[in-house]
Amino acid sequence: MQRPGGRTARVRNAVHEAVIALLAEQSWEELSLPAVAERSGVHQATLYRRWRTVPALLDDVVAEHLTRAAPLPDTGTLRGDLDAYAAGVARGLTGPFRVLILRAAMVDTGGAGTPALSGVLAQRSRQLQEMLDRARDRGEAAPTLDELVELVLAPLYFYALFGRPAGAADPRRLVDRLLELAAAA
Amino acid sequence: MQRPGGRTARVRNAVHEAVIALLAEQSWEELSLPAVAERSGVHQATLYRRWRTVPALLDDVVAEHLTRAAPLPDTGTLRGDLDAYAAGVARGLTGPFRVLILRAAMVDTGGAGTPALSGVLAQRSRQLQEMLDRARDRGEAAPTLDELVELVLAPLYFYALFGRPAGAADPRRLVDRLLELAAAA
Repeated sequence: MQRPGGRTARVRNAVHEAVIALLAEQSWEELSLPAVAERSGVHQATLYRRWRTVPALLDDVVAEHLTRAAPLPDTGTLRGDLDAYAAGVARGLTGPFRVLILRAAMVDTGGAGTPALSGVLAQRSRQLQEMLDRARDRGEAAPTLDELVELVLAPLYFYALFGRPAGAADPRRLVDRLLELAAAA
Repeated sequence: MQRPGGRTARVRNAVHEAVIALLAEQSWEELSLPAVAERSGVHQATLYRRWRTVPALLDDVVAEHLTRAAPLPDTGTLRGDLDAYAAGVARGLTGPFRVLILRAAMVDTGGAGTPALSGVLAQRSRQLQEMLDRARDRGEAAPTLDELVELVLAPLYFYALFGRPAGAADPRRLVDRLLELAAAA
């Protein structure tokens, strides 16, 4: 007998993979739960019961992606942690996820969004704060969470949004500036 | 007899106003050129000839908005110019335009976008560079255009995207940081 948790995780994985495969062929606006059911081999009834709507499913895919694409590192130095984190964010903003993240941000505006994304962002904020606290505990000059968001995350998202010659948004350069600011404070 | 330029501008204005009014009632995905024709009193044939598609019309509305919402000031000091510009950007990222700007960024990804937005952004970059050049000519310590984009524009967009308690993205605080960086360089 399979553990329910294991089966649930496998279903979620198969459904997410089907969504990502379909998004390579069509826009998210054309996506439907029946199409996801057919591609994933998961029953439509399961999809409707678990996610209810395409937007909720897309939010779940984005939430999972944000969590996986930029795992929070613990390298022993703030420099190492920030470089690894920023590079992960930059990677995570490429491909089909770039549009999905924008869509999630748009949907949330209309008040019709699911809490999936905001939940992930809140969790991520706590994790980043812990990363900065660890650095401060080691005696390193650490920036605030707002400074990390404004000087590193925001430019990476801005360049992903509006396009930019490759390499212009070098994550390491943004981390350099953040650490200089923290050292000067 | 009316000058063609005057009539063209009036038609564009009426159509843009109709789009903005309709966006208060429905999402841009539900927008149609016939609905815009009915609301604006402009013939459908004119809309199809001039804009061809809803996305092209939306890009035109965004381009006009970006140009108008943040006119580039010339106050005589870099501090004055940057404060006025940043406050204008922050204001421009509220209301229906927030979603329209995100949509424009998403559409451009798919390769199906019109050049309206990228044209405006290129023009805006040139104007910002002139603003910084004027400051340098006056002997002020001026940041680079990339620094202005990364330290002021990017955080304002990031907060508009992902929401934030009111006041958190105080434009003046971002300008302070940019000017401190320029003074230290």
